Parts: sequence; C-alpha cells; structure tokens
Amino acid sequence: MTLHAYRTHTCAQLRAADVGNTVRLSGWIHRKRDHGNLLFVDIRDHYGITQIVTDTDSPAHAVLDKLRAESVVTITGNVVARSAETVNANLPSGEVEVRADDVTVQSSAGELPMPVFGEAEYPEEIRLKYRYLDLRRERLHANIVLRSNVISSIRKRMIDQGFTEFQTPILTASSPEGARDYLVPSRVHPGKFYALPQAPQIFKQLLMVAGFDRYFQIAPCFRDEDARADRSPGEFYQLDFEMSFVTQDDVFAAIEPVLHGVFEEFANGRKVSPAPFPRIPYRESMLKYGSDKPDLRNPIIITDVSDHFAKSGFGRFESIVAEGGRVRAIPAPKTAEKSRKFFDEMNSWAQGEGFAGLGYITQKNGELGGPIAKNHGEEATRKLVAELGLGPDDGIFFAAGPELTAAKLAGAARTRVGQQLGLIPDGEFRFCWIVDFPMYEYDEESKKIDFSHNPFSMPQGELEALETKDPLDILAYQYDIVCNGIELSSGAIRNHRPDIMYKAFEIAGYSQAEVDTNFAGIINAFKLGAPPHGGSAPGIDRIVMMLANEPNIREVIVFPMNQKAEDVMMGAPAPATAKQLRELSIRLIDGPKD
Amino acid sequence: MTLHAYRTHTCAQLRAADVGNTVRLSGWIHRKRDHGNLLFVDIRDHYGITQIVTDTDSPAHAVLDKLRAESVVTITGNVVARSAETVNANLPSGEVEVRADDVTVQSSAGELPMPVFGEAEYPEEIRLKYRYLDLRRERLHANIVLRSNVISSIRKRMIDQGFTEFQTPILTASSPEGARDYLVPSRVHPGKFYALPQAPQIFKQLLMVAGFDRYFQIAPCFRDEDARADRSPGEFYQLDFEMSFVTQDDVFAAIEPVLHGVFEEFANGRKVSPAPFPRIPYRESMLKYGSDKPDLRNPIIITDVSDHFAKSGFGRFESIVAEGGRVRAIPAPKTAEKSRKFFDEMNSWAQGEGFAGLGYITQKNGELGGPIAKNHGEEATRKLVAELGLGPDDGIFFAAGPELTAAKLAGAARTRVGQQLGLIPDGEFRFCWIVDFPMYEYDEESKKIDFSHNPFSMPQGELEALETKDPLDILAYQYDIVCNGIELSSGAIRNHRPDIMYKAFEIAGYSQAEVDTNFAGIINAFKLGAPPHGGSAPGIDRIVMMLANEPNIREVIVFPMNQKAEDVMMGAPAPATAKQLRELSIRLIDGPKD
Repeated sequence: MTLHAYRTHTCAQLRAADVGNTVRLSGWIHRKRDHGNLLFVDIRDHYGITQIVTDTDSPAHAVLDKLRAESVVTITGNVVARSAETVNANLPSGEVEVRADDVTVQSSAGELPMPVFGEAEYPEEIRLKYRYLDLRRERLHANIVLRSNVISSIRKRMIDQGFTEFQTPILTASSPEGARDYLVPSRVHPGKFYALPQAPQIFKQLLMVAGFDRYFQIAPCFRDEDARADRSPGEFYQLDFEMSFVTQDDVFAAIEPVLHGVFEEFANGRKVSPAPFPRIPYRESMLKYGSDKPDLRNPIIITDVSDHFAKSGFGRFESIVAEGGRVRAIPAPKTAEKSRKFFDEMNSWAQGEGFAGLGYITQKNGELGGPIAKNHGEEATRKLVAELGLGPDDGIFFAAGPELTAAKLAGAARTRVGQQLGLIPDGEFRFCWIVDFPMYEYDEESKKIDFSHNPFSMPQGELEALETKDPLDILAYQYDIVCNGIELSSGAIRNHRPDIMYKAFEIAGYSQAEVDTNFAGIINAFKLGAPPHGGSAPGIDRIVMMLANEPNIREVIVFPMNQKAEDVMMGAPAPATAKQLRELSIRLIDGPKD
Repeated sequence: MTLHAYRTHTCAQLRAADVGNTVRLSGWIHRKRDHGNLLFVDIRDHYGITQIVTDTDSPAHAVLDKLRAESVVTITGNVVARSAETVNANLPSGEVEVRADDVTVQSSAGELPMPVFGEAEYPEEIRLKYRYLDLRRERLHANIVLRSNVISSIRKRMIDQGFTEFQTPILTASSPEGARDYLVPSRVHPGKFYALPQAPQIFKQLLMVAGFDRYFQIAPCFRDEDARADRSPGEFYQLDFEMSFVTQDDVFAAIEPVLHGVFEEFANGRKVSPAPFPRIPYRESMLKYGSDKPDLRNPIIITDVSDHFAKSGFGRFESIVAEGGRVRAIPAPKTAEKSRKFFDEMNSWAQGEGFAGLGYITQKNGELGGPIAKNHGEEATRKLVAELGLGPDDGIFFAAGPELTAAKLAGAARTRVGQQLGLIPDGEFRFCWIVDFPMYEYDEESKKIDFSHNPFSMPQGELEALETKDPLDILAYQYDIVCNGIELSSGAIRNHRPDIMYKAFEIAGYSQAEVDTNFAGIINAFKLGAPPHGGSAPGIDRIVMMLANEPNIREVIVFPMNQKAEDVMMGAPAPATAKQLRELSIRLIDGPKD
C-alpha cells in the first residue's frame, strides 16, 4: 500500500480502532518530553494533537531529538494502544499513540520569538508581529474558526430567510456617514480620490430602488477612526441588510430568527432570548434602564419617583422636581448585610463620574437607614418602599437632576449595583429592540430643532405628522438592536419619499436646495420609483466577540492592525516610492514625525 | 382580515387557485395598456409580473391612468381568472389578473432617462449613471441574481470540501504581484501609505504557516490597471484558496468537484467536463493546441511535422527545420467544398497578424491541391496525409518558424479554422489543467536564465533538481485551470523551504541577501515551521461571465465602474477637500487635466 505523501489521517483522527495500522501524520512539533530511552512528541495540526513515541533505536529518534518545537514533520509509524494509566482523556486521540518508524522534516523551525505551547501572556506587539505563531495557539485558533463558522451560519440563515448577497463597490465615493473616510488617489484622474465605504448604505438603498427585494452582505466597512477595545482601526465587518415593502415589524421578524439562531448555535449552553425579542420604546428604556442600550440580564428596574418627592417636604429632591428635574430610584436588592461603606462608595463613585451624588436608603429587616430616610421621615419612606414593591432587606439609590442627567446616572448606577451585587449572569444573551426614537431634539447649543439621530429615517405618521405635530413629539421608524447592553446596530425604515424628506429637513432648518445639493444621488433615484424599504447592519466583529467571550476585538480578527493602525507583521503603512506618488499626482507635506 | 400594509403576495405568486381572493400586491408599473374602458397595468417586483386591470368606474383607474411607468404602487383587489384567449402562457401568473379596488402610490416616478420595459439598447454611460434603472431590466437583473447564486453555491461547495473562509485585510502592505497598487494615505502616519491587496497571496500562505488547513475566501482584489472587456478597472473577486499537506493532485481533487458542480448547477443544459479534468503538460498543450489556454471544444489537434519535412526536399520547410525551427500541421476537416478563397484568406490573415504566412494543402475526394502539395510532390504529400490520419476531404494548414512562433501561429490558426468551420460548439464547458510549466526560461533579451512564471512555486524534484539538472529542464508544480480557452486561474504548490528558495533564486541570478530583503515577511515565517502547501484563485467574475454568457464584465457586476475607472452614478473619484488632504499630509501635483 502506498501512503499519501503527507498524511493518511489528521492529528485528531486516530482511535483505539486504528491500533495495528500503519499511518502517516503531518504537523507541528507541539512539545517534546524526553524520558531517557523514550522520546514523546505531541504533533499538532489544525484538527488536533496526536502523541508520537520513539525509542533510541529508531532512526526517527535522532531526527526528532534535534528538531526545535514548531518544526513541521511527517511521521510514519504504527498505531499502538496506550497503557491504561497513560491514556489521555483530554485528547480525542488520547487512547493511542504512534510509534514512529520514519520521520521526514518538512520545515525545521528556528528559535521562536514566542512559544506556541502553554498559556503564557506575551506583549501584543510581539503577538501581532508573529501573528502566524500566535494563531497556532489554541484560544486564538479557536476564536478565528468560531468567527468563520459564525459568518457562515449567518449567511446560511440570511439566505434561508430569502435574502440575496451582493458585493457593493469598495472603491467608491465619500458618503455622509459622519466618520472620516479613507481616500484612494486616482491615477487616471489626477487630483481626484475614491473613498472606501464607511458602510454600503447608499448602495443598499439603491439596490432596493433597483428592485432587488431582500439584500444582505457580510460587508467590509472602513472608518479612519482611532482604535478602541471594541473597534478596530481601519476595517470592520457588518451584516448589512435591507428589505423592500416592509414595516418595522417585518424587519424584526426577518432578522430575529437569524440572530437568535446564530447565538443559539454557538451559545455553548448560554441562554439566548427567544424571538420575538422585547420591543422597548426609547423613552421607556431611558426611564427603566437609564440607557438606550439596556442590559436586560440585570434585573434592576429604575422607577421615576419625582411625583413622590414633588411635595414631600424633602427639600433637595422637591426643589429639583420643582425646577423640572426628575428623581429616579434604583433598587439595591438584598443589601441588608452591606456595610455603610458600600453605599458611601457608590456616592463617591457617582461624584467621581461628574454627577452631584447618589443618595440612598438602606433597609435591614425593615429597619431604615441612610441620610435620605432620616430627612424624608419614616412614614414617607415606608410609603415609598411600598410603592416600589421592595422587600424589607432592599436598599434604594436615588439619582436626581435634569431628566437626561438623572436618567444617565440612574442607568450607570443600575449597572454598577448589578455588577457589585453579582446580579448580572454571565451565561445569557438577552436581546431587545429599542424603538420609537424621537425624530427631533432641541439643541441647547444652537437653540434650534435638529435631527436626533438619522435624518433619513421615516417619521412615524409620515408627511401628516411633519405638517401637524410638534416636532419634538414626532417619533421615527428607527430602531436599535441591543444585546447584553451592547448595541449591535441601528436601523430604520427609510424615508423614500422626496416630499417627506424635504419637509423633514425643512423642520431642521435646511432648504430644498441644500437637500438637493448634499444628497443628490439618493434623492434623484427616489424620484424614479422607490419602494418603501428598511434594514439594519449588526456588527459582525461584536457578535463574534460576544460569542467568543473576548473583550478585545483583535482576538477575533485573523490579521488585525494594532491600536496605532499599523500592520506590524506586513509593515503597513509604508512609504511609497517617488514614482508611485508621481503617478498618483500627489506629493507629501512634511508632517509630524512618528 | 387585515392585509399586510404592502403585500399579501409577490408579483410572481398568484395562480388560478387564488381566484376569488382579495390580495394586495406592490411593485413598479412595468407597462400600461389603455383599452378605452379598461386599463391594463403590469406590475413588477423582484420576483415577477402580475397583470392588474381597472375599469373607468374604479377609483383606482384615475390614479393608475395618471402615473408614469416605473412608479411604485400598492394594489388591493380581487383575483380573477383570465378568459382562455387572454391567458399569458409566458407568465407564471398568466392565468389570472387582479381587479384593482384600491391603489396607493408609494412613489411617483418622474420622466425616465431610459426605459425599463423593452429590449432597446442604451449608451453605456446612461446605463451606468442610472444603474438602478438598468438593474430593473430583466437580463441584468437575472445576471446579478445569477452571480449571487453562483457565489453562494461556490461557498457551500468549498465548505462541503472542508474549507474555512477567512477575511484577510484590505488595508495592507504592497506585495510583489506585478500590477500597480492602489495606495491609501495614512492619516496617523504622515508620509506612509496602505496598499489595497492585489490578491491575498501572502496572507493565505501565512494562514497555512499559522496552521489553518484549508482556507478559502471570495476575496476582493484590487489592481490599478486599465479596463478590458473581461477585466474591471479597480476591484474584482477571486475564489482564493490554499491547502496544507497536499500534492498537486490533492489540489485538483479538492477543487474539481467545486468547479464542476457549480458549472453543472447553472449550466442550463450546457455540457460540463466531468471530473477529473484532463491534465495536459504545458509542452504538450503548446504542441497540440498551440496555446497554454486550449479551447478543448475545438476538435482540431495540431501535429508537429518537422521530421517529415526535415529531409523532404521541400526547400522552405526543410531550411526552417534545419535552422532549429518547427513545422506544425493544422487539419482543416471536411473542407473539400471550400473555395480557394477560404484558404488564401487564412494565409492573408496570418500575415496580417505578423506571421510569415500559412501554407496549405487542399483535398477534394483525395485530390490534392494548393501550393505546398505541388512543391512537395504527390507521393510525399499522400504520405503526410496518411501520417496525420486525415480523410480524403480534409485540408491542412502549415505553421512554420522558430518553435514558439510556429506554436502560436498554429494555435491561432486552429482557433480560426475551428470558428470558420463552425466546429466549436456553444453549449459546452470543457475544462482542463495545464501542468508541468517550466520553472525557468532563457531570456533572449538579458541573455540569462530567468523564472518562467512564478518564482515561488516548488520546483519538481525540489533541491536535488535545482542542484543537478539543467535549469531549462526543471518543471514546476505550477498549474493553470482553463475552461473553453479561458484561463480561470494560475496556481501552484508553493516553495515553503527557505533553502530551496535561496537556491531557486540563485539560479535566476539573485543573492540570498536580495531574497531576504525583498521577501522578508514570508521567508521569516517559513523559518518558524511551514507546512507544504498549495492553492489557486479562480476568477469569480469570469466564471459568472461564462455562465451568464456575457462577453462584458460590467454585465455581471452590480455597480461597476466605467472603462475610465469612474463610478458615474456616485461620482467617484472626486476632488478631496483641502482639510482632508491636510489631514492626510499630502498635496496635489497639478497633473494633466482630464
């Protein structure tokens, strides 16, 4: 029998049933253990690890003995059973080992700048420079495979939902997305530049205008922004999608099974919200969770207690309410045994975050404590506790101030209390939609009405609402999908009607001529027959980060840039040649040296 | 019953069984036909067309009557059966029509710069500027859906073959691929530039070094080259793949089912070569087909007849052979009835192409004709006809000259004869692999040995061959996949061994230091444990062009640039602002105005 040149099996395949067979394996030398007359070598490939053994009589012994870890070898030999006490139950191939008769060195490794075997932490710059070594390590290897499987699963689920994937251009024009564009000088058109897309927003809307019904794309997007833990500099991927002839509920119904399904598939025992996900109006979310990105794993619900304090005689809160401010109560369940220090430290934390402070009431078996209980009086405080439906061991924090300030402080306190009390379970993915965002807000700085979020969303009530309602009461068909307090994406039913768009912009102070100038492409397309449409674009990198339970985005990207937007492995960015610059009709300005 | 706001059915769904039901449809007004008291309106969506009818009594009539074609409407009404004589058998919904009770105008179209209905040709600049209109037309719409389905099928088949898809970086470093790079100025690192990848070649090899076993990617690639009919300026897509621990045959065995499968799936009755595809050594292909991209649909096989003419007494061919040149015979089957003009025009065509000319022999029922038969003599000519196994009505063309010239002329003549005689069937996809490319060639200009194709391919026989053989006799593990005379891609088993690479470059006149300087990234990675690996990267756009039977690549790309590398719809490239240029530390050189 002629064996394959490199392998008859992968390093994860051999089992007790293979004992007695001659096999050939190829892989990296993961680790070696020299037991005097016996040399044990774990060899590793993409699929797993198999133990090789040679004794000093075998010609393979001398070869393997000399090789450094991470050299690549092809081993030919016999599968033998391990003795009961040497079986490795952690390894799928752990019942057997291969007695090496022959070894071929495919690649002899030099000295390694970082080891592959073991869990030791290495500086990120070393890890990124030798990414091909770092990627051999178990955790990163598993993350990258997970990423691929997640994307593949998303694609399958989108196609199952009737979506079609199209590739939109990467060399394109700048679009008004807000972040900084990457520009690409044109050689053929001196002085002109392409822009890399921040998102395929205009293209996907034009696809709807072109009559394609359900578009999606695992879309590369580019923003010249500085790096953060959860944002790569340069490029990132979105599950970009758009649908025609749909209401907001149709969008939700299309994408919920995809998100639920993919999270469930890779949850590994973690719980995932069943579809339909809760829909929470923006104002309710700001009230109950103090945020438009609520972490629903946290059981704490904020209550507005402004009315309670309005004529309470409790001076500080009463005056805040009288001035139009709000008081919000954040329960701190089962804190009877918490020391005064716990409560005081919450207050100092709030002050450290730039808020006035965080008042509190403590309870221990119904016995009240803390400064607010004292000032507010026992009877009134008991009434408040009853109104909030709290038990005799539940404390309360209070966030007070102008509405947005009170909401934000209450939200931050809710998160902190939840974390400190261990109320936020790790093993859950809790999804929700935030809906009914206001279309407009009053901009205190410019003293005028402006768009709250996306000017291109359809206002609820359409033209009639714009013509008849107080702009600050108009809601938009705009929505966010949130999981565990992380916004996966914004989305909207788009405004596809030029008449409604002109009116919407007029309210924010823009003339029809300005709209025509700034958004000519899409407005002109909408004048030639546009369907109602809407969509969203959940971030792929974030989804993978959550599933991999990795707080750093660079752990889920195969070849990421560092935080200074450098690819230290490939040496990018790099100087261009004078000839290249000449061809592109550009030259350098001497900038600050880095 | 409440109907959905936009549709209960798509425009392709209604059948006779739906007669009597109230339905709602949304779509574009495809065309209107006014029959006096009845107005017929075809409405169209992504899925199909349904006929709407209203009479003058219906309030819907007045609305529809006023709307221009390509307006978007929502129609509510009753499904009615068409009378037998008005059934439209070409339309899946052609047995029924919808009697409109109500119409909502979703988008009123203005005057169209080009129509959607009908087959009229429009200038490409108009088509590209209003791409969202052009995409509504049946053929282009179908091409784009086909492209998406082809890519989706390729992905599924690659995953079924055990490949994993990874996204390699788009903002990266320049790599030595030969074409011009697109550069992206870095804001954070003044004076430095990213390059867009011409192909993810280095990344995929590093993925193999990183231990991933079978990589693929539907990879966007970028080359700043001028446009051709089969090449888009700017960006294009490849099915990029790479495998570890494989021989050349393993690569073929992995990808053949994918290519065969996807062509078969979308062949629409056209025949597809079964796997395994023929493997044709480069030298054999140059001999038999006069090309390394043979169109195997063409049954004509070229034969080398140099030996026949070596001492033939036929002066011109004899002297060519004596000088080391070759004579090739191209049969012209069943040309007894072809006039002298047919043969003479072939000769003038060859001269027009810059060759010396194309001699010929004619046969009509065994009767010889043409200048060569006369000069060569009847007996010798009959012997030649017999040697070539030709019938009594088959003619022969002759290409003579230095070997490469003779081969190229013979190949071009083979194609031309095949076309003119109608021997190349349309409805077939004939695949082959071209293998055994020479590693080196003698460069007449620089009078030295140089790489023939890819310096990074593994030489057959590895180090030993390099050290012992005449370089011009060394073959490479390099291969092309060819379909119907079109090269879909090159590929190779890579040289993963620094020692073999240094030696291979030494033969071509490069020092180890030069190799280390120019290819530091990959050489250094190979020194830390690299597996044997190989792959290829068939062009996606070309595959779709073949399946769609479109000669122009812009017919299979959703938003292509024009031949001047402009996106005339989005207005790219465009001038940048002074602020943008300042941030990027570049300024413009005044170049030629366009």
